[in-house]
Amino acid sequence: MANHDPGSRRAGLELSLTRVIDAPRALVWEAWTNPEHLKTWWAPAPITTPECELDVRPGGIFRTLMRGPDGAEYPGTGVFLEVVDQERIVFTDALEPGWWPAKEPFMTAIITMADEGGGTRYTARVRHKDEADRARHEEMGFHEGWGTCLDQLAALAVRLKERRP
Amino acid sequence: MANHDPGSRRAGLELSLTRVIDAPRALVWEAWTNPEHLKTWWAPAPITTPECELDVRPGGIFRTLMRGPDGAEYPGTGVFLEVVDQERIVFTDALEPGWWPAKEPFMTAIITMADEGGGTRYTARVRHKDEADRARHEEMGFHEGWGTCLDQLAALAVRLKERRP
Repeated sequence: MANHDPGSRRAGLELSLTRVIDAPRALVWEAWTNPEHLKTWWAPAPITTPECELDVRPGGIFRTLMRGPDGAEYPGTGVFLEVVDQERIVFTDALEPGWWPAKEPFMTAIITMADEGGGTRYTARVRHKDEADRARHEEMGFHEGWGTCLDQLAALAVRLKERRP
Repeated sequence: MANHDPGSRRAGLELSLTRVIDAPRALVWEAWTNPEHLKTWWAPAPITTPECELDVRPGGIFRTLMRGPDGAEYPGTGVFLEVVDQERIVFTDALEPGWWPAKEPFMTAIITMADEGGGTRYTARVRHKDEADRARHEEMGFHEGWGTCLDQLAALAVRLKERRP
């Protein structure tokens, strides 16, 4: 599967961020795919994620409910498209469980995890249908928001590592 | 994977048709998944399908170009979501290769093939995001159009059978 389309009409429609997490891939994977763990890092604090439903296989549900400090709720439902254990997770909100087309499709996210040093290179690429959606996502605070979440994910993976013998 | 959501808000958002084809599943599958075969039945005559690109695996491209007798062209690009050999094909135009969200998502189609008598029960279910899209598809001639194509597919599968010893 192509990860990018250099020079294509898609150039510029992707937002991405990457980080090296000081924990092995197995623990980053665990922090991502266990819904109880995901609730603790998915939303940038002080936003919380009180609900999460994960069925980590192609076509499986990925549902979250985020809640702001003012009580505002942000529900989201999508599906997983590709799952490669400890390596790759692709999900989208363009489809819902049962593969139903979504009413408000916005993005596909491609998460990859690779060994680097003693830790894990974590990369998130987010794909949009057009420049307007990409710009909107950037204005919504993609880099700060997803960056904060990634910091939270990294901190959790490190805590999981420190708890293991 | 759920094939339908009875009683849900999705009731009525699906169009479907089914037929028993007098040929074994292996040949119906061959008629569907070989692009040279697909070109001969994909569009309801007198519309033709001069171009077809198929990569029948999850995430693989499904691109067709249909052409009307007046020369009007109808391009379509989507991806396969699920492929179970000789049993099930799911594709959508809500995503494009690389899992990019599509600009004009319209439907997901679920094709199933099952043994029935000496032939094949072929069923197509087409899922839409809302009632407006379902109605539009019906008005575009879903039952006549997909019905004609299914007749053409059935006739091809029977010809393939007659050619084999």
